[in-house]
Amino acid sequence: MTRVVIVGGSAAGMAAAAKAKRVNKELDVIVFERSKYVSYAACGVPYYFQGLVKELDKLVYYTAEYFRKERGIDVRTRHLVTEIDRSSKTVTAIDLESGKEVKVEYDKLLLATGGIASKPPVDGINLDGIFTLRILEDADKLYREAVKADTIGIVGVGYIGLEMAEAFRKMGKKVIVLGRRSHVLPSFDEEPAKPVEEVIRRNGVDLHLNEKVVAFEGRDRVNKVVTDKGSYNVDLVLLSVGVKPNIEFAKKLGLEIGTTGAIKVDKTMRTSDPDIYAAGDNVETINLVTGRPIYIPLAPTANKMGRVAGENLAGGYAEFPGIVGTAIAKIFDIEVGRTGLTYEEALKEGFNAVYIDIIHGTRSHYYPGNKRINIRLVADKDTHRVLGLQATGEEGVLARVDTAAAVITAGMKTEDLKMLDLAYAPPFAPVWDPLVVAASVIERKFK
Amino acid sequence: MTRVVIVGGSAAGMAAAAKAKRVNKELDVIVFERSKYVSYAACGVPYYFQGLVKELDKLVYYTAEYFRKERGIDVRTRHLVTEIDRSSKTVTAIDLESGKEVKVEYDKLLLATGGIASKPPVDGINLDGIFTLRILEDADKLYREAVKADTIGIVGVGYIGLEMAEAFRKMGKKVIVLGRRSHVLPSFDEEPAKPVEEVIRRNGVDLHLNEKVVAFEGRDRVNKVVTDKGSYNVDLVLLSVGVKPNIEFAKKLGLEIGTTGAIKVDKTMRTSDPDIYAAGDNVETINLVTGRPIYIPLAPTANKMGRVAGENLAGGYAEFPGIVGTAIAKIFDIEVGRTGLTYEEALKEGFNAVYIDIIHGTRSHYYPGNKRINIRLVADKDTHRVLGLQATGEEGVLARVDTAAAVITAGMKTEDLKMLDLAYAPPFAPVWDPLVVAASVIERKFK
Repeated sequence: MTRVVIVGGSAAGMAAAAKAKRVNKELDVIVFERSKYVSYAACGVPYYFQGLVKELDKLVYYTAEYFRKERGIDVRTRHLVTEIDRSSKTVTAIDLESGKEVKVEYDKLLLATGGIASKPPVDGINLDGIFTLRILEDADKLYREAVKADTIGIVGVGYIGLEMAEAFRKMGKKVIVLGRRSHVLPSFDEEPAKPVEEVIRRNGVDLHLNEKVVAFEGRDRVNKVVTDKGSYNVDLVLLSVGVKPNIEFAKKLGLEIGTTGAIKVDKTMRTSDPDIYAAGDNVETINLVTGRPIYIPLAPTANKMGRVAGENLAGGYAEFPGIVGTAIAKIFDIEVGRTGLTYEEALKEGFNAVYIDIIHGTRSHYYPGNKRINIRLVADKDTHRVLGLQATGEEGVLARVDTAAAVITAGMKTEDLKMLDLAYAPPFAPVWDPLVVAASVIERKFK
Repeated sequence: MTRVVIVGGSAAGMAAAAKAKRVNKELDVIVFERSKYVSYAACGVPYYFQGLVKELDKLVYYTAEYFRKERGIDVRTRHLVTEIDRSSKTVTAIDLESGKEVKVEYDKLLLATGGIASKPPVDGINLDGIFTLRILEDADKLYREAVKADTIGIVGVGYIGLEMAEAFRKMGKKVIVLGRRSHVLPSFDEEPAKPVEEVIRRNGVDLHLNEKVVAFEGRDRVNKVVTDKGSYNVDLVLLSVGVKPNIEFAKKLGLEIGTTGAIKVDKTMRTSDPDIYAAGDNVETINLVTGRPIYIPLAPTANKMGRVAGENLAGGYAEFPGIVGTAIAKIFDIEVGRTGLTYEEALKEGFNAVYIDIIHGTRSHYYPGNKRINIRLVADKDTHRVLGLQATGEEGVLARVDTAAAVITAGMKTEDLKMLDLAYAPPFAPVWDPLVVAASVIERKFK
């Protein structure tokens, strides 16, 4: 019997396990997961803090028990993998409950070790009261501390940082958010991110941009964040400055690491060792706009990669083509989404990029509840190829971002987008869809 | 000075006029429109009846006055064109206010004569109290009659028929809807239309399917609709059985008519006479899925065609590539949308078509307000090309239909859709987007 061993039981790991078993029922699939949980929605954590999700357990898609009983997958939670040996093809893990060591052989191995929260290398970074959010257990601990806190400092202005700022405000906390750059949401250009900056300030978040954290202070426990411009008294700190690929084992095993610092895999998710696959927040993939490697750790990508890896681990064949960098978030009442390249990114990648910003209605002008949507469309002046879209608004962002993701993946030009047969009815969209308008208006920039 | 004469001042005509003037300010543009209104939203009429739009005038985008003063377009409302002469290149119209005849010469002509409401050739069709809805004046008249009516019969189960059924219910009327086919929404397959049938019945609409109207009865005024299965007492009737292209002038002028019965144009919207263009609900276009002519008169298409015609009339160059048949509507609380081919259409067109029906959540399972969306994906078994999508649900239909429209236009396969980098965040979509799920599940049908 062929055995597949999977290191890590989050999105990619469990998607792979489930797919592999579906493709080949005879397969022996063992998953080692260091935490109590497998297959949970880390992205749901802010909504637990916001009070929209009553129990953390609700974020679990499927339990380890379910995978064992219903899917025949040997899921071993609370097992920390300590060693992987390529020559003997063995994995060693410690059962964190009993302290016992277990050793299993593999035919094929999947590294689904995920990402780890980045930490700035500053004084006091290891003080108590400084949290990161990666696994459900982190959320549980943080929540219990946050309840007691008066003022919470958040370092980082990405999606999670801002979603958590909203959550802490809804818990009635004073919230200080510190960002190094000139604008919130680092994967956006400056102007398209402005409405998000405004909404968080309007909701009482004390936002400081262009400030770099230089130290955390406190006796054992953090009580002050020091930046290059000032200092802030806090009761606890949430660090949310990005995710790094967890490549510890990959490095030890001598697997090829890509230019982004994440594990390099081919389209089948295979590493430089033909018997070892990798999937999820620990690998890089191809940016379909540039054709070059990119590292954007997000759940839908991890899940798809996992499924592709599972198919291949089970002897089938599947490919993961790459991504266009699509993402969406809700920050207070603002929807914010993006796909493809920002203007800044497009320039950096060597495109002769142009952009247009438009503000448009989301419904027919006469239909009640008509809202505004802001769109930045980025295109290449030479080829007219659509390169990217950023959108904010009170509604309608998902439709425009997803449509643009398909347009960009297909390599369409602004001429194609301008004539795209998009849906129209007064409650949903104006007769000239904002995407069509943007594709039309950007032509001015081609002259 | 070059003169462009446009016959018809609705969507296509005014889009063409505005675009032509933008491209070439020196152009002399004359528009003849038989009604009082130009550039109005016929699609907004049901919302006037529903009480969501307080005055019919709100449906006007721009007035004739605006086009005259601000855009320099010579708009002549209440002018009925009576004759067009190709050899002398003249258009004759009657000023319906003064009864005076006017004659103008053209260098280029645009026929934007729109569509006309279909009428079944049955006894009593010309009785008073039988209405169709094409222009704003129709809506005004119908509304004043509907207020006084007790029971309203609607013949036809397309978007407008059902939107008006909702509107009349909201006006407190008894509503009888009669459809010839076995299901509502003729541009859908039977099962995907079921949720719409259910919602209109649940809201008290007396729906009769598989019934063909054979006569209208009454002295001068209709008081009974007779079908092949029964008869219904009514106070007035709305006929909503589709739109036919208005090709009266085109036929008289000997212009080529296409296989669909609408005017044939090339991609620049030019008819078989190089000086005569046509755009809007009177022309056919190309179905981008089949490559064959199709007639689907909808506002976004008419507007885009008008803009393309305007560019070309003014000496520029633009092409209208065709459509994929995208449409959306809200019927009571149900969103319903479609794009590409239905399963039935795909078979008829000779594809080796397969379909899959899925029901999926619209948000993460734990996020409050998670709704259900029903999706039918149609694909070609031989090539795996995505051929069509139909969706109903309480939310999220626009995003899936528009995305599918781009996917279908690009000629993507189900493998591409399955790996498409769509946006995910708990308030907007599940981590496996319904489109991705459908593209994955349909693979079973390829075996």
